[in-house]
Amino acid sequence: MRIYTKTGDGGETSVIGGRVRKDDARVEAYGTIDELNSFVGQAAALLQDDRFKDLREQLAVVGQELFDCGSDLAYTPAAQQPYKTHAAMTERLEVWIDRLEAGNPPLDRFILPGGSPPAAALHICRTVCRRAERRVVTLTDEGEVNPEVLRYLNRLSDYFFSAARAANLKLRAEDVEYVRGARVFT
Amino acid sequence: MRIYTKTGDGGETSVIGGRVRKDDARVEAYGTIDELNSFVGQAAALLQDDRFKDLREQLAVVGQELFDCGSDLAYTPAAQQPYKTHAAMTERLEVWIDRLEAGNPPLDRFILPGGSPPAAALHICRTVCRRAERRVVTLTDEGEVNPEVLRYLNRLSDYFFSAARAANLKLRAEDVEYVRGARVFT
Amino acid sequence: MRIYTKTGDGGETSVIGGRVRKDDARVEAYGTIDELNSFVGQAAALLQDDRFKDLREQLAVVGQELFDCGSDLAYTPAAQQPYKTHAAMTERLEVWIDRLEAGNPPLDRFILPGGSPPAAALHICRTVCRRAERRVVTLTDEGEVNPEVLRYLNRLSDYFFSAARAANLKLRAEDVEYVRGARVFT
Ligand code: B12
Ligand code: B12
Ligand code: B12
Ligand SMILES: C[C@H]1O[C@@H](n2cnc3c(N)ncnc32)[C@H](O)[C@@H]1O
Ligand SMILES: C[C@H]1O[C@@H](n2cnc3c(N)ncnc32)[C@H](O)[C@@H]1O
Ligand SMILES: C[C@H]1O[C@@H](n2cnc3c(N)ncnc32)[C@H](O)[C@@H]1O
Ligand SMILES: [Mg+2]
Ligand SMILES: [Mg+2]
Ligand SMILES: [Mg+2]
Repeated sequence: MRIYTKTGDGGETSVIGGRVRKDDARVEAYGTIDELNSFVGQAAALLQDDRFKDLREQLAVVGQELFDCGSDLAYTPAAQQPYKTHAAMTERLEVWIDRLEAGNPPLDRFILPGGSPPAAALHICRTVCRRAERRVVTLTDEGEVNPEVLRYLNRLSDYFFSAARAANLKLRAEDVEYVRGARVFT
Repeated sequence: MRIYTKTGDGGETSVIGGRVRKDDARVEAYGTIDELNSFVGQAAALLQDDRFKDLREQLAVVGQELFDCGSDLAYTPAAQQPYKTHAAMTERLEVWIDRLEAGNPPLDRFILPGGSPPAAALHICRTVCRRAERRVVTLTDEGEVNPEVLRYLNRLSDYFFSAARAANLKLRAEDVEYVRGARVFT
Repeated sequence: MRIYTKTGDGGETSVIGGRVRKDDARVEAYGTIDELNSFVGQAAALLQDDRFKDLREQLAVVGQELFDCGSDLAYTPAAQQPYKTHAAMTERLEVWIDRLEAGNPPLDRFILPGGSPPAAALHICRTVCRRAERRVVTLTDEGEVNPEVLRYLNRLSDYFFSAARAANLKLRAEDVEYVRGARVFT
């Protein structure tokens, strides 16, 4: 396979429907989703243990769906094809979160993002997901963006939070509370 | 626990004292500190070994203090409460660095950020800390920022550097010098 | 060693030839290369296995060369010294990619960035490399930038892609295709 084409050596690149600078808000947005997807790959690789079959399968779905999100952003508005990111994907995340939270202990205060290695990796996914969400918000200034991508990413960071807590619970790693904070969860 | 509230689905969110776009410089700043905190969680999770008790305890303090930093940035200037980040926190980092450096070999040139897995994780913390510092500097354009947050983050990246070197020393992983550089440390 | 100098506590710092804000495009660019280099350190630390001697040696070269890239960006245009990043470095990456791809199975569609832990780490390098490339493109607005740095980073992300695939192949971890995509590789 010939991977490199050298066509981007000068700082410009292709989106579907045109050519733009590599630091264009559109490339920035799906490039950050690609970065997030790599951290999802890392988290999944740390969840090989049999007890994490559910989380692993969910992350495999997320890996696919992040490509759907990236795809919806990779077209110029003029070239846009039918969107791939749909409300049902966000609703499935909600089902997963509800299921995870049913098993998680109640929560009053912020917790330190860490504990076991898989939970730490999931907190990294959570915060990189939020960075990707910010880059998609910036892209909305340049024209229509599929609003389902924003909903999906917003829910996805909450999913990573619940998944991190579930992983720590299973591995008996403690979630340490932020001590100088107020009761923030209701 | 109900984690998701869906109130941020449209790209806006709450800071303490108002509502802003998610790509607002304020959200960007504490969001990056949250990302940093997740990498600190990852580094701590890789330092389970008994010999790293000191580093692990220090990272647990840092995890708490990064919430203090984030908290000082999460208020709009109008709503600002008394600051949580104080000079004494930075001075404690200096004590830790001095103690670590007393054990580290002298240094002439830049070193490649890596070696053992825990040292690599600490170099990631170092460079993400510097990214967070840059995002806080950007925030200073929008009104008063607790100057102690900037001092703290500046010292914290130096702490991560010393901690990474200390970890490699303990694990007998070599710190490789950048060969085409000058003597930069004095 | 005295690491901390406190000279950057106010949000400004030194580049070679002047003082700038820490969120200056120049600092942003080499700071992101430094972050990338830390992830390269992480990937190398996960490739200790004897079978990965080639990849490990290549990553050690990359670690050095990323300092060359950073160095070329750390001077103000007025103070610029002879560049350190040369075409031959990019050509060596091409040789490595060709060699890796000769062993990799042919590819039709995008693959999920993950699999084994080393491959996941290499995909993180790939996407952070692309973020660094974007930050260097932004810097081109401020004056001359060594064009070889852009070529090098463009090829380097392709190298990480091929290296990730090679690592998965060796570890018999499957590369999962993106199912709702078209045939994108030719
Ligand atoms: C800032 C913030 C963050 C920041 C924290 C910054 C930092 N410190 O580093 C960051 C980005 C880290 C964050 C992350 C998350 N957050 Co948040 N966050 C907030 C926000 C805006 C403010 C929270 C805060 O610190 N308030 C300051 C406290 C001190 O103020 P307060 O509650 O008003 O308390 C005052 C008084 O009430 C009183 N008081 C408070 N408690 C008590 C108790 C007693 C006994 C008394 C007398 C007085 C008292 O004293 C306080 C002093 O001013 C709130 C929304 C909001 N506007 O409140 C969401 C909020 C708490 N976050 C929320 C969520 C979901 C999260 C995340 C899970 C999101 C995610 N997917 O990543 C993570 C969890 C992180 C973790 N590790 O636990 C939700 C919680 C929803 C719920 N179930 O209740 C909220 C409510 C936002 C929302 N509507 O969705 N968050
Ligand atoms: C750019 C830079 C970086 C970049 C490097 C970019 C790259 N190449 O990729 C990055 C961001 C990576 C970096 C990181 C760090 N840096 Co820095 N960095 C600098 C900076 C601005 C320039 C260094 C440099 O490359 N100079 C170029 C050299 C070639 O120039 P020069 O020293 O003037 O050398 C010339 C002449 O002196 C002569 N020469 C030099 N040596 C010799 C020797 C002989 C024998 C002869 C004849 C001539 C000669 O030839 C050279 C050719 O021009 C300096 C500050 C400054 N203005 O110098 C800080 C500086 C070196 N960094 C510093 C620090 C603390 C760090 C970090 C630890 C910060 C952190 N917490 O992360 C890390 C360490 C990283 C690591 N892995 O080791 C400190 C060191 C303090 C100290 N104790 O001395 C400095 C001095 C800044 C400061 N005041 O705080 N840094
Ligand atoms: C967007 C994009 C990305 C995004 C994907 C975003 C997302 N979905 O999340 C991201 C940033 C992730 C990405 C990454 C990479 N990419 Co890319 N990417 C593209 C780009 C711009 C569009 C690809 C795409 O999705 N097209 C949409 C498809 C659906 O459109 P289409 O091919 O025109 O297909 C339509 C028709 O042709 C038809 N059709 C297609 N197939 C078939 C089949 C049949 C049977 C029929 C009847 C019809 C049909 O239906 C489609 C519907 O519209 C292309 C360049 C380009 N302009 O095409 C490069 C491109 C595919 N990428 C390329 C490369 C090299 C990569 C990376 C390796 C770069 C790197 N170093 O990281 C990685 C690999 C990532 C991975 N994990 O596999 C190269 C491939 C070179 C090659 N050897 O062929 C390309 C061609 C760019 C280039 N010139 O260098 N990429
Ligand atoms: C829980 C809190 O996190 C903040 N918040 C919401 N979305 C993001 C994001 N994408 N990135 C960083 N912070 C965010 C808001 O302040 C919210 O109230
Ligand atoms: C050691 C060198 O690192 C650079 N420097 C200082 N602060 C930051 C930061 N937050 N991010 C990236 N680079 C930084 C300056 O150029 C300094 O001299
Ligand atoms: C493979 C596709 O990846 C996108 N692309 C090219 N360079 C970058 C970068 N630095 N960051 C993010 N995306 C990039 C372009 O759209 C290219 O066609
Ligand atoms: Mg949210
Ligand atoms: Mg500093
Ligand atoms: Mg490229």
